[in-house]
Parts: sequence; C-alpha cells; structure tokens
Amino acid sequence: MGKTRLEAFSDGVIAIIITIMVLELKVPHGENPAALLPLLPVFLSYVLSFVYIGIYWNNHHHMLHATHKVTGAILWANLHLLFWLSLVPFVTGWMGENHFAAAPTALYGFVLLMAALAYWTMQRIIIASQGPESLLKKAVGGDRKGKTSLLLYLVAIPAAFWSQALSGGIYVLVALIWLVPDKRIERAMRAAE
Amino acid sequence: MGKTRLEAFSDGVIAIIITIMVLELKVPHGENPAALLPLLPVFLSYVLSFVYIGIYWNNHHHMLHATHKVTGAILWANLHLLFWLSLVPFVTGWMGENHFAAAPTALYGFVLLMAALAYWTMQRIIIASQGPESLLKKAVGGDRKGKTSLLLYLVAIPAAFWSQALSGGIYVLVALIWLVPDKRIERAMRAAE
Amino acid sequence: MGKTRLEAFSDGVIAIIITIMVLELKVPHGENPAALLPLLPVFLSYVLSFVYIGIYWNNHHHMLHATHKVTGAILWANLHLLFWLSLVPFVTGWMGENHFAAAPTALYGFVLLMAALAYWTMQRIIIASQGPESLLKKAVGGDRKGKTSLLLYLVAIPAAFWSQALSGGIYVLVALIWLVPDKRIERAMRAAE
Amino acid sequence: MGKTRLEAFSDGVIAIIITIMVLELKVPHGENPAALLPLLPVFLSYVLSFVYIGIYWNNHHHMLHATHKVTGAILWANLHLLFWLSLVPFVTGWMGENHFAAAPTALYGFVLLMAALAYWTMQRIIIASQGPESLLKKAVGGDRKGKTSLLLYLVAIPAAFWSQALSGGIYVLVALIWLVPDKRIERAMRAAE
Repeated sequence: MGKTRLEAFSDGVIAIIITIMVLELKVPHGENPAALLPLLPVFLSYVLSFVYIGIYWNNHHHMLHATHKVTGAILWANLHLLFWLSLVPFVTGWMGENHFAAAPTALYGFVLLMAALAYWTMQRIIIASQGPESLLKKAVGGDRKGKTSLLLYLVAIPAAFWSQALSGGIYVLVALIWLVPDKRIERAMRAAE
Repeated sequence: MGKTRLEAFSDGVIAIIITIMVLELKVPHGENPAALLPLLPVFLSYVLSFVYIGIYWNNHHHMLHATHKVTGAILWANLHLLFWLSLVPFVTGWMGENHFAAAPTALYGFVLLMAALAYWTMQRIIIASQGPESLLKKAVGGDRKGKTSLLLYLVAIPAAFWSQALSGGIYVLVALIWLVPDKRIERAMRAAE
Repeated sequence: MGKTRLEAFSDGVIAIIITIMVLELKVPHGENPAALLPLLPVFLSYVLSFVYIGIYWNNHHHMLHATHKVTGAILWANLHLLFWLSLVPFVTGWMGENHFAAAPTALYGFVLLMAALAYWTMQRIIIASQGPESLLKKAVGGDRKGKTSLLLYLVAIPAAFWSQALSGGIYVLVALIWLVPDKRIERAMRAAE
Repeated sequence: MGKTRLEAFSDGVIAIIITIMVLELKVPHGENPAALLPLLPVFLSYVLSFVYIGIYWNNHHHMLHATHKVTGAILWANLHLLFWLSLVPFVTGWMGENHFAAAPTALYGFVLLMAALAYWTMQRIIIASQGPESLLKKAVGGDRKGKTSLLLYLVAIPAAFWSQALSGGIYVLVALIWLVPDKRIERAMRAAE
C-alpha cells in the first residue's frame, strides 16, 4: 500500500487545522484600533499554535520520507496523531479567550503532550515495521529532542497552576527546540545513499 | 479516466468533515475546569465520529486500491457516499449537545446506516464494472462485516427510543468490528500477484 | 506548465465549498424530532447544491482531462469559475432559511447562471488555446446541454418572482440534464486514440 | 526532499483561506433584496481578497515551478508566507464590516505588506539555495513589480487615515499590476530549455 494518500489526507487535515484556528480570531465590531486590543492574547496563542502545527507538519513530512511501507497500524497511529492535533484549535481558543488563565494553559500543554506521545508512538510503529536495519531508527537515534519535549511538557502542565508565564515560556522553548527541522533524518538518508 | 482526482477530491472532503466536527466543540466562556464538563457528551460523540470517519477513509483507501477503471457511475456512487458522510458532523453535534437523547441518537444511527448502504452500493458498482474476475469481489467475499454492520444499525436505531446506552454500545461495537483495516483486500491483492 | 496543481487547487476549493455548506445546517437546540422540521428547507437546498457542486466537479474533471497545456488565461478562467461556485453556500443558506422566498430563489439562479457562464468561458479559452484540432471542441460539439442550461436559468430567475415552485423545478431539471457525466468527452477521447 | 508535499500543503491552506472568507458573508435574516445591501462592502472586500489570494496562488505556483531542491529554510519561509495569508480573511472581514473605515483599511494594507515581504523573503531564500546560476534569479531580474508593490503598500497604509478611497484604489492598482501571471518565469524557463 502506497503512502501517497496517507500524505495527502494528513496534509489536508493539517492544512485545515492550521487555517480554522484563525476563525477563533473573531472580527471585532468597532472600527477603532483599540477594538483589536482584547484580541491580543487570542492572536498570540494563534501564533504559538501556528508554529506548533507547522513543526508537526514539517517533522511528519520528514518521518514519512524515511518510511516506505505503510501498514494498517501506521494508518491508525497517524489518525491518532491527527486526533490530538485536531484539538489544538479548541485549546488555543480557550487559552486565548481566557488570557492564559491557569486551567486553559494546563490543558493546552496536556494536548501538546498527547500529540507528542502520539507522534512518538507512530515513530515506534514505523521503526518496528522496518526491522533492525530501520532507516528511521538510525535517523532518530536516542531521540533526545523528543524525550526533552515530553519532560518539559510534564513540568509545564502543573506549573500552569502556579505561574502561567513559566508554562508559556516552556511552550515557546519547546517550539524553538523543534523549529530547526529534523536534520538527523536528512543526514541518515544521505549516509544511506 | 484516472482515479487520482477521485482520490484527491475524496481525501479533501473527508479531511474537512473530520476536522470541522471539532468546531461543534465550542470554546467555553469560563476559565474553570468545570466549564469543560458540559462539553463532555459533545467530546465523546466527537471521538466516536472521528473513529467512524477514520474507518471510512481507511476502507475507501483500500477499496479504491483494488479499482483500476473509474466510470461515471463510480464517480456518482462516491459523491453519494460523501453526501451521507457530510451529514455526520451535524448528527454528531445534535447527539452530543442533547446528551445522547433518544431522537438524536436514532438519527445518528440512521446516517451511519445510509453511509454504510452508500459504501455497499459503491462496492457493488465497482465489482460490476470489473467483470467476473473482479479483484474486489474476491477480496470482499461474502462481506460478513458489511452485513453484520447493517443488521446492527437496524437494531440500534429503534433501540435508541428504549435505551440510548444500548444504541451507543452498538455504535461502539460496529466501530470496533471495523477498526481492523480490511485485510481481505490486502490478502487478495497479494494472492493476485 | 503542468495541470497537476491546477487540479489539486480546484479539488481543494470545491471540496471545501461542498462541505462548508453543511455548516448552514445549524444544530437545533431541542432534542425533539420536531426540532428538525424548520431545517427541512435548508436541508433540501443543501441537497440541490450538493448535486450542483458535484456536477461541476465532475465536468471540471472531464474538461481538464481533455486539456494538456495550461496557460495564464486558463488559470484565471478557473479562478473566475471557483469564485462563482464559492458563492453557492451563501445563496443556498439564504434560499433555505427563507423557505424558498422570491428574491433568494432568484439570486440562487443568478449565481448558477454566472457559474455556468464562467464554465462556458473557461471552455472557450481552452478550445482557443488548443487550435483548430482541439480535442475539447470535438467533444463539446454544439454544446446543446450548455446552451439549454443557460436558457433555463434565464427563465427561472424572473419566474422566481411569480412562482418559486417553477424556478425550483427548473433548477432540479437542469441538474437532471447534467447528472449524466459528459460522455461526449470520453467518446471523443476514445475516438482520438 | 521533494516539493510535492510542499505544493500540496500550500494548495490546501490557500484553498481553505480563499473559501472560508466567504463565511464572513453572513446569510441575512430578511428575504428582501434590501437585506443584501448592508453586505455590499463585505462582498466588495471579499472580491478584492479573492483576487489577491488568487494572485498569490498563481505566483507561488510559478515560483515553485522554478525551484528544484526544497530546504528546511524554504519550508519555513513558506509557512511564514502562509501565516500572513491566513490573516487575510480576518482583515477582510474587519474592513468590510466597518465599511472601509480608516484603521481596518490600514491594517488590511499592513497584512498585504507583510505577505509581500514574506513572499520576497521566500524568493531570496530559493535564489540563494540555487547558487549563481539560479533560474529563479534570471526570471525575477530586478523584480520591478515586487518593489513597486511594496512602495505602493507603504503609501496606502498611512493614506487610509486621510482618504480610504485612495488606499482602496491603491490596493486595486497593485492587484491589477499582478493580475498578469509572472511571464518572466515562463520566459526564463523556455530560454533555459
């Protein structure tokens, strides 16, 4: 079974997720620049989530690049990842509209954590299906970035009830860690050639 | 006529259906975790429908994999299937917002039943167009899964007026039956090679 | 310049148009089956528009099948067609919510007329770019279906102010005329081979 | 790394942006033709933005046509461009609903300016990755159109606080300048062959 439709479907879902988030940015009624001010937290959380979804698309792209055979388990691991990503617009809206209050900020981190776990699971399933010579395994290696992110989310979620600025800072930090695309896969593929 | 655009269009429509369902999960106004509680039934019905749409995408993928020639009749059978799937976000929202009340739960089953019939019709049309040596026919065989699902929907719809838990349980059961992708097609294709 | 991206972009836009129309079918608040009754006109206009968009996708598919070179003029003719199709959800919602009142029913026909003219213009531009041996020209021939539709729309629009049932009947009639995919193109292509 | 998924993802996002704008055209409650009148400014701003997004899709199409290798930097430059384009529905709605008032008209120009800068940045990054023999560099040349647009936006933004008609006129003018697809790239590619 080819991976073309898996890529096309994932591209479609991710494209819609990244775009419908902007619908939470409700057009204000006044014509004054001041009417935009209450939208600032919603806008900031939109920017953060846009970057996160962009990172997932980017890495998803790289991960499938190192995958040749698509099994039924991979299809469902992919749908599981898309499920958690599909909740990002909801938690983005809740966090933005409540000006980064404690519970919404924690839930935002929880959805990011679940998406990261879903990504990690999908990665394990692809590696297992590729056998001992797995190209993806070589590329991912010890997966330092992945483990660090999980740890940081686990700190940021409870921290939201104590300092939302700290949680927010951690979310920005994780995004920065991943902003560089996964060069490990490109390197491993070049080495394989 | 090729099947590339048929796949691309179906992928697009299914990707949008699966993603706009999350728009029914309206961002609550309070910042309390308690503000999420009323959303629980909507969330649960979202999860169920996400799995159903995922199953349809998965099986649609397999069915077209075993199809080579796309006729006008197949194009319309496909649009007919997409029509019933496009109603899933509506019935999901109605069922969720009314906490699995009788009529919405029955209508949810009715839309699932019509989608299943549309899928079955498309399958028959593809098999008919492939002639006696149909690869899809061999793969589908007696279509035990398909027939069982139709029967279960026919039980679940009237049951909703007596016990919504029973109907809900049946919907979950049908999803579980299909969660395993259609190995029959993969097996038949391997045998054909 | 290839036509792959033109097809992919058009498929995306048409897939979104056909799917967001269902958002006009607002989830009713009551749990009674009677709560669905006021939605009936919206539902009926949704079905009609779904069929129309399906017909356009289908014929667009066939028209591009008979096109090899994509020029700048074709790109803009395509965007022009997508523009009028993008207004279909709006007029569908207006007509449905006002129970097929005179002005909304006439406007619905006007948008269909403009979409038909845009389709016809795109067809002319493709034929002109293909020269005297145009495959599409042979396929389209005298374009009886196209001319009949334009005429019927021109009758249905003013008729809406006199009898909306007549206008609605004409819209259904035009849809039935086109429901059969454009066999002329398939035939001409087979003859060309 | 191939450019197929980059194109598919961009097509998806741009298709959604161009289509969800129409959701700002809220279905009016009355059935009178007069009920449409207040929608006129929203409709006009929708037409303008539709043309702008169409131009971006068109030129994006041409730019990637002259690109062979996709690097991580190009992926992020593309996401940056999509980010600014994703704000177009929001500013279109704000400008339309406030009947082209000063601040919304200026903000509309600001988002167009940022999108133009993002496009220009992406162009620079592709040219840099292609080396001294860059096909895109030859095609773009002195980039007169791009520089003129940036200058015109810089005039139109402050002008909005003095005469919105002037700003609007400049936005229409820039659209007209670009409406002709980028023949330079087609010419340079033909010369290269």
